Amino acid sequence: MRDTPYLVVDETLLETNLAAMAAHARALGVALRPHAKTHKTPEIAHRQLAHGAVGLTVATVGEAEVFADAGVDDLFIAYPVWAVGPRASRLRSLADRVRLRVGADSIEGVRMLTDAVHAGRGGAPPLAIAVEVDSGHHRSGIAPERAVEVAAAALEAGLLVDGVFTFPGHSYGSGAAAPAAGDEAAALATARDALVAAGIQCPVVSGGSTPSARAADGGVLTELRPGVYLFGDAQQWELDTIEPSTIALSARATVVSRRHGVAVVDAGSKILGADRAAYASGYGRLLDFPDARITALSEHHATITFPPDTVVPALGTVLRVVPNHVCNAVNLVDELVVERDGVDVGTWVVAARGRTT
Amino acid sequence: MRDTPYLVVDETLLETNLAAMAAHARALGVALRPHAKTHKTPEIAHRQLAHGAVGLTVATVGEAEVFADAGVDDLFIAYPVWAVGPRASRLRSLADRVRLRVGADSIEGVRMLTDAVHAGRGGAPPLAIAVEVDSGHHRSGIAPERAVEVAAAALEAGLLVDGVFTFPGHSYGSGAAAPAAGDEAAALATARDALVAAGIQCPVVSGGSTPSARAADGGVLTELRPGVYLFGDAQQWELDTIEPSTIALSARATVVSRRHGVAVVDAGSKILGADRAAYASGYGRLLDFPDARITALSEHHATITFPPDTVVPALGTVLRVVPNHVCNAVNLVDELVVERDGVDVGTWVVAARGRTT
Repeated sequence: MRDTPYLVVDETLLETNLAAMAAHARALGVALRPHAKTHKTPEIAHRQLAHGAVGLTVATVGEAEVFADAGVDDLFIAYPVWAVGPRASRLRSLADRVRLRVGADSIEGVRMLTDAVHAGRGGAPPLAIAVEVDSGHHRSGIAPERAVEVAAAALEAGLLVDGVFTFPGHSYGSGAAAPAAGDEAAALATARDALVAAGIQCPVVSGGSTPSARAADGGVLTELRPGVYLFGDAQQWELDTIEPSTIALSARATVVSRRHGVAVVDAGSKILGADRAAYASGYGRLLDFPDARITALSEHHATITFPPDTVVPALGTVLRVVPNHVCNAVNLVDELVVERDGVDVGTWVVAARGRTT
Repeated sequence: MRDTPYLVVDETLLETNLAAMAAHARALGVALRPHAKTHKTPEIAHRQLAHGAVGLTVATVGEAEVFADAGVDDLFIAYPVWAVGPRASRLRSLADRVRLRVGADSIEGVRMLTDAVHAGRGGAPPLAIAVEVDSGHHRSGIAPERAVEVAAAALEAGLLVDGVFTFPGHSYGSGAAAPAAGDEAAALATARDALVAAGIQCPVVSGGSTPSARAADGGVLTELRPGVYLFGDAQQWELDTIEPSTIALSARATVVSRRHGVAVVDAGSKILGADRAAYASGYGRLLDFPDARITALSEHHATITFPPDTVVPALGTVLRVVPNHVCNAVNLVDELVVERDGVDVGTWVVAARGRTT
C-alpha cells in the first residue's frame, strides 16, 4: 500500500497508445519523434524507440542530457536555444556524443549556437539546426517565408540545416485540431519551398501535437512530434482527441473530507498541476465518475462536485483523478507507479523532472 | 553565471517581509505559525523561528518529516489527515519526536488518527488535534457549530484538543480580504464558544492566509498561519495585499524569441507553475515592466506582450518574472538561488519539494 497522492501508469494502456501512434505515423509515411517532455522517463523513451521512433524530441538541454545519459543517440531540442554561459559548453558536450538537432528562429540565435558549439571542437561533426516557423500558435517561430534567412545564416556559419519545424499549439481548442493541422502543413510547405528555391536542402519537415496528429498532412510532413498521446489527459479527453478508456495515467487520491454532493481529495495542484485551459470544464476529471467535476483546486485539495443523486464516495475512498495537463503533472513527481492488470509492479524514475535549463 | 530559468530569493527583502509579519502578529497579540508549504526550505524555516514564530504549519506528513529532520520541534499539519497505511506509522513516528498537532474535520478522521497514533506507543504523549471549520471557503472543514462534535470525539478517544482552525481562502479575490477576515473571526468564535459551552478547553484559535492577515481579528484569533507573505507573488500584487517593491522571489528568464511588441522567455509553467486565478491579469508579472502582461504560458515559454511604444527587450536579455502563485513555483525547483544586494551568494535546498504525501 502506498500513501496517496501518487501517479500511476497503466502499462497495458501505455503500450496500446504507443503502438497506435507508431502505426499512425507508419500509415502516414512519416517518421515519429515523440516529445519526451511529457514523460521525462528513460524507461518510456526506450519503449518509444522500440516501437520505431527515429529519436526523441526534448525541450531543454537538461532533458537532452538525461536521455543521452540513458542511451538515446538522436535528439532534437525543439526550442530556440539561447546558447550562452554554462549552456554553451553543455550543448557542445552533447553534440560530441549524440546526433543533435537544435531549433532556431533568429539569425542571432544561430550565431550564438555557432559560437557555442564550434568553439574548440576541432573535427567534430557540425551541429544541425531546424528552423522554427510560426504556423498560427504565435509563440516562438519566424514567419514561414522568412525561414530561409535563418537557414542561410546557419549554412554560412558552417552548421547543418536539417529543415523546418513548427508546433501547431492552436490545435488545443474545441474543433481546432483539423484547421491547425492545415495551418501547420501550409506554413511548413511555404518554409520548405523557400529553402528549396534558395538551393537549400530541406529533408526534415517536422510538425506535431497530439490533437493535430490525426489530421497531419503526410504529403508535406516528414516527421511527427506528439507528446501527450502516450498517456492522454483530461485536456485531450475534453478536446475529443482521445477516448477516456485509453487514458494511461491517473493520480490516486484519497477522500479526506466530504459534505452533501462534494468530496475533497488529497490531490491538489502540487501533484495534478494547476493547468486549466479556457475550454476545460474543471481542474481534472475522474475516471470512475465522468459526470463529476473538480470545481476548485488548491495545493493539497481538489474539491469534487458530484451530480445530484450521486452517492458521494466515503471518507478514505481512493479515487482515480486524471490531470488536465499530464506533462506538468509528471514533472511534479520523482517516480511513476506502474500497474499491470491492476497490480502495482514497481516504479519508473522520472529522471528529467525539473530539468528546465 | 547560471543557466536560466531559475528562481532567486532577494535575502534583504525576505528578511524585511519576515520581520514585518512578525511585528504585525506581535502587535495583534497573536502567535505566528507560518505555513511552510510556501518555501519548503529549512534555511527559511529557521529564519521564521528566529523572528519569533512559535512553530511551523505544514500541509502534509512528508513536509512535517522534512522540518522535523531539520530540527523544528513544534509542527501543525493543518490538514484533515487520513491516517492509514504507511502514513499511520509515519505519523506515529513523528508524534514521538516533535510536538505535533493535526487537523481533523470528521469523527471518522479522528478515529483513524487515534488508531494510527496510539497503536503501540505506550506512555508517549498523546497527539493533539485542532478541529478544522469552514469559514466560507467551502473546501475542507466542518460547520463551526459542529466543531464540538469532532472535539468531543477526540477527547473521548484520548487525544488532546488544542482548539479550532480555519483557512479563509475566499480572501483571494478583489476586495475580499477584509470580509473574509470577518468570516474567519465569526466562524472561529462560534466554534470556540461551542467547545467552551461543552466544557472543552480551546486555547488555540487559529486563522491564516496572507491576504486576510492584515485584517485578522486579534480579539478572537490566538494564532496566524500566513504562507506567501515572506516572498509575495503576482497574485498578492494584483490583490493589493503587498507592494511589488517588496516581492522577494522572482524567476530569471532569457528572451529566446521576439517580434513586434512581444518577447518570449524561457520560463514556462515548469518553473512558474500554471496557476491563473480568475482575477489574474496574466500568467505572472515582470518586475521591470509592470505594464507588460504574460498573455500565454506553455511548459517552456512565457509570451510577454508589451504596451505599445515599449522597446521590447533584445534576444538574450535576462528578465525578472514574478510567478502568480509562489508556493507552486517553489515546488518545481530543487534549490533557490539567493542574492544579497544583487550578488549571487549561493543556494538553499528546497528540501520539502514534492513531499505531497
